[in-house]
Amino acid sequence: MRPLLTVRSGLGPYEVVRVPSFEALVAAAGPPERTWFVVDEGLLRARPDAFAAVAPERLVPLASTEHTKSFEALGPLLDGLLGSGVRRDARLVAVGGGICQDTVGFAASILMRGVDWWFAPTTLLAQADSCIGAKTSINLGARKNQLGTFNAPSRVLLVDGALLTLPADQRRSGLGEVAKFHLLEGEASWGWIQERLRWDDVGLLDELVERSLTIKRRYIEEDEFDRGVRNLLNHGHTFGHAFEAATRFAIPHGMAVALGMCFAARVSERRGLCSPAHCDELLHVLRPLFHPFQHALADASGEELLRAMGTDKKNVGGKTYAILTRGPGRMEKTAVDLAGEVAPLFGDFVRWVA
Amino acid sequence: MRPLLTVRSGLGPYEVVRVPSFEALVAAAGPPERTWFVVDEGLLRARPDAFAAVAPERLVPLASTEHTKSFEALGPLLDGLLGSGVRRDARLVAVGGGICQDTVGFAASILMRGVDWWFAPTTLLAQADSCIGAKTSINLGARKNQLGTFNAPSRVLLVDGALLTLPADQRRSGLGEVAKFHLLEGEASWGWIQERLRWDDVGLLDELVERSLTIKRRYIEEDEFDRGVRNLLNHGHTFGHAFEAATRFAIPHGMAVALGMCFAARVSERRGLCSPAHCDELLHVLRPLFHPFQHALADASGEELLRAMGTDKKNVGGKTYAILTRGPGRMEKTAVDLAGEVAPLFGDFVRWVA
Repeated sequence: MRPLLTVRSGLGPYEVVRVPSFEALVAAAGPPERTWFVVDEGLLRARPDAFAAVAPERLVPLASTEHTKSFEALGPLLDGLLGSGVRRDARLVAVGGGICQDTVGFAASILMRGVDWWFAPTTLLAQADSCIGAKTSINLGARKNQLGTFNAPSRVLLVDGALLTLPADQRRSGLGEVAKFHLLEGEASWGWIQERLRWDDVGLLDELVERSLTIKRRYIEEDEFDRGVRNLLNHGHTFGHAFEAATRFAIPHGMAVALGMCFAARVSERRGLCSPAHCDELLHVLRPLFHPFQHALADASGEELLRAMGTDKKNVGGKTYAILTRGPGRMEKTAVDLAGEVAPLFGDFVRWVA
Repeated sequence: MRPLLTVRSGLGPYEVVRVPSFEALVAAAGPPERTWFVVDEGLLRARPDAFAAVAPERLVPLASTEHTKSFEALGPLLDGLLGSGVRRDARLVAVGGGICQDTVGFAASILMRGVDWWFAPTTLLAQADSCIGAKTSINLGARKNQLGTFNAPSRVLLVDGALLTLPADQRRSGLGEVAKFHLLEGEASWGWIQERLRWDDVGLLDELVERSLTIKRRYIEEDEFDRGVRNLLNHGHTFGHAFEAATRFAIPHGMAVALGMCFAARVSERRGLCSPAHCDELLHVLRPLFHPFQHALADASGEELLRAMGTDKKNVGGKTYAILTRGPGRMEKTAVDLAGEVAPLFGDFVRWVA
């Protein structure tokens, strides 16, 4: 294992390391009788050999669907884990993307008041963003991400070559979050990343992952529980989540975030916070990451969009908040007026990004 | 509010205070539009006036049954809370016994990654024991207490007179845990409590509550997450939980703990750790707290009893642990042999306590 960085969490520090293969991950994970692997089922199909050393009763396949990370689906998963012998001294090893992280991280939070867990992210989104920061999000019926806990894995393991097998669209989606981190960082980083949002160069992706985690770490070490500066990481998310919901998740998350950043820029421009030129530059850089998925927005109902923004977790005191921008590195959290300010911009926006 | 004591938790300190009435609790709990009351439904029936100031959509009645604190029942409760407007800045106020505490404390742990909550315990068990220590326990199907979190309320409020309306059996049951704390404390406390296990003197109960919390606080401040000395608070619980399960909860919790302490003493005596005289004294002091509920044990299946002990959360590495005793103030956590050591003593025990 090669250490990459340490996150100094208030709940204890944890390391991000690189491991050479899934087989090495299995070998490193601890005594077989106390270790359970919860693995994305697509990965299991693609690499059946990689987990051959794990006993079948300790190998749990997980579908990458929104239903998987629902409160309703957690009952049978927890029951299966307890039935196969999970006790307080167990370790769960999650191998997969964000849904796998949310599901296993949440399960580890509530099994016997907390069991140890590791996370090996296998998507670009999970490697470059969600794997650090300790957030888990769970759906309850139609209420997306309204349940969850703060629970960091005790170790994050980036498996060499894991991104190689990803479909190109998944890598493009992940680059949406990578772009966001570099935009948050300021002019220099934003300039640097513009030439490097390429999803076909896996060596470069590893570098982008490390830079993104290094940026994100600063925010979460300063504000682990999301009461202040960490909110800025949600740039693009108030609108992005609404784009996902209103299109019934036809737009992959990172692409929706890229679209959300473009929309936040339009709202900001209308307020006079940033220039039209910045909006155009943003669209020019980000459009290759989401095209043609933005077309799904043309069918989205404006009403559903408003409702989705209105139920965002960041909203308190009856207000809706978004992260607006004055340009690279100059974001701010602000209350927005959904009906009077945001909704009227939507039609123009859809035509602009088309 | 009169402050009683502060618990210095690793997750932040919290206070135990006395308030003069339920009405005063409602008035103190914060802005009505951000405050939800989840109240034991027996209490609501007995004191409908006390919560008259709470808007109906923010007043949730809760049944005191094991089903209420199940993962299955939590879905509709969480859905109702979110549907009635709970957001990150909400406060949940739990008013009731241990089941209400478990349910609301767990819900507060996972709603939007944690919302604030207060707890006003209204049973002797909850006032003297569970209200501090931050544990929540949730059932999953037939798996009792296998899920949970560490989540302390931000404030514990003892309402004057709340214990007055309790049935005598509930007060007796609570004295089982009160007796346990004083036994853990050593000879002097054990001597002091023997004359005071009276469930008909509410002024005395208030004093016993304060002494019990003062003893418990030391254990939890030293070992919040139950990795060491705090285990000793489980004296009587490995066997007590099994007595509850094997009698399908015919024996109230505190009474089962009192019976569990007697059984732990018998196992200890057989090992030569304590004297027969100590066993007899223990039975003499504790029997008035549980009689005649011990008779339910005569019908319990020894097999179910063993299974219940075998699935205790304290068990790790395939071993079963219990807190045995060398006498007042001299408890120790030890692995026990269920089939060879514990089970053969059960028949004699049932006759001894009859």
